[in-house]
Amino acid sequence: MDFQVRYREYAEEFERALLEFCDKMQFLPERLKESMRYSLTIGGKRLRPVLFLSALDMFGLDWKKELNIAIAIECIHTYSLIHDDLPAMDNDDFRRGKPSNHKMFGEAHAILAGDALLNLAYSMMFAESARGEEYLRAARYLCDAAGAGGMIAGQSADLLYTANQDASEEELRFVYDHKTGKLIVAPLVMAAMIAGVHSLDLEKFGEALGSLFQLTDDILDEKGDETLGKTLGKDKASDKLTIVKLYGLNASELQADLLAERCRLLLEPIERDTEFFRLLVDYVRMRKK
Amino acid sequence: MDFQVRYREYAEEFERALLEFCDKMQFLPERLKESMRYSLTIGGKRLRPVLFLSALDMFGLDWKKELNIAIAIECIHTYSLIHDDLPAMDNDDFRRGKPSNHKMFGEAHAILAGDALLNLAYSMMFAESARGEEYLRAARYLCDAAGAGGMIAGQSADLLYTANQDASEEELRFVYDHKTGKLIVAPLVMAAMIAGVHSLDLEKFGEALGSLFQLTDDILDEKGDETLGKTLGKDKASDKLTIVKLYGLNASELQADLLAERCRLLLEPIERDTEFFRLLVDYVRMRKK
Repeated sequence: MDFQVRYREYAEEFERALLEFCDKMQFLPERLKESMRYSLTIGGKRLRPVLFLSALDMFGLDWKKELNIAIAIECIHTYSLIHDDLPAMDNDDFRRGKPSNHKMFGEAHAILAGDALLNLAYSMMFAESARGEEYLRAARYLCDAAGAGGMIAGQSADLLYTANQDASEEELRFVYDHKTGKLIVAPLVMAAMIAGVHSLDLEKFGEALGSLFQLTDDILDEKGDETLGKTLGKDKASDKLTIVKLYGLNASELQADLLAERCRLLLEPIERDTEFFRLLVDYVRMRKK
Repeated sequence: MDFQVRYREYAEEFERALLEFCDKMQFLPERLKESMRYSLTIGGKRLRPVLFLSALDMFGLDWKKELNIAIAIECIHTYSLIHDDLPAMDNDDFRRGKPSNHKMFGEAHAILAGDALLNLAYSMMFAESARGEEYLRAARYLCDAAGAGGMIAGQSADLLYTANQDASEEELRFVYDHKTGKLIVAPLVMAAMIAGVHSLDLEKFGEALGSLFQLTDDILDEKGDETLGKTLGKDKASDKLTIVKLYGLNASELQADLLAERCRLLLEPIERDTEFFRLLVDYVRMRKK
């Protein structure tokens, strides 16, 4: 299997559907719409939609029929980035190599665009829920993953814990598992729910993949790799505590290798063709951005 | 009918359910939870929950069975107030006579508490949607009313239009209809949907009531009545354009009387006992806060 080709197939189909969706958005004022559209279409790896679509594919479902749900997931991810970048939060002027939303549209509209994208995601998920019980279950899972017991708890913990240089590894892991992990697990579990498949194995894999993704993110930030697209070495320059700062770069690279191995092992009990996900683990481990 | 007694019955039952709900909220970090709880339980008229519960009552349904939906509606209202009060938005240090959320918990947690309340509302509505198609319909209506085609469009328009002293009456009405109106109409229409009743008359009444509510709000602000609980005369002191500024206080009072009369007329085609709503119109028109 050519991993890049497969990844691109999912991502490009998603991108096409997203642009079509954005073109159809009809509401006033124009500035609100433009602010939402800007951050939605600014690019990015589309990891969460790809996870969702490829998992549907693995379960033998017609993944091209579920692009709206992929868009809803990306809406939630995008809203979280917009709000995270705000001056009162992480205060980042760049995102995906472009000016962050509030630098383009002002803070007020960045707040509103984030709110609107979160709302839009659920508007789409309520519409999907009318298709059947399995869709409603998936919608509920997504909503819980994104909320005060999930991603938002992670954002809150990120603000509270990582500013403290004495934060424990347990606290940092809480941040990782919630802020990043929940929305990486969710697309996989949602796909399993829609397929009517028991998802515990896939859930465990998603949790490990989420940890790997966040760890490589912190490693890339520490290295200050120029292709990351965010303000470079931002965590490094700030007093923000990360696992990488706690253990150092070398130990973290080793930990990432072990996590990648754990991800591969967790795929083994899944009696499906998991090749794409095995290659995805390498991609996340070795990525440069 | 003693209007005050009836209003209090709905509001107090709601308040009891809300506190019970807040006590059951279990997630970390504590600061996020406290921030959400603070704004939810800070008081207020609970107009939207009361509209919802009293409309269910009018349709002969057991309104005490639907308190979770009333809480979800209030969560959305509360999130919008928290975000509206942020320095980048309306920049208001007080709300309901108490320090606004960001003055208590900082801007970052005010943003997150708002996000979390919006998310929580839909988490509750997804749970309710499992009860049947009419609940899913009501959930979708609420979501659309709150979103980029509804309340958030109004918040965006408020920022864009009311700063412009040449804004047209049409633009100001767009703000009123969306920012305030949508979430006053929604509880009424949702109740009708759950009752399985055609809701066009009630929807029209809700629209007029929403306009009346916003107009009396602006009149109270212009008068600088000390019981309003927000920063007094804030619109008056700022360059924010309102209908009251456009037409003057006397003409606005007259317009409010006409709107109240219109509300009463719109209740007539509804073949139910609408006495509570007739008295509610007087209450909204004559309120001091």
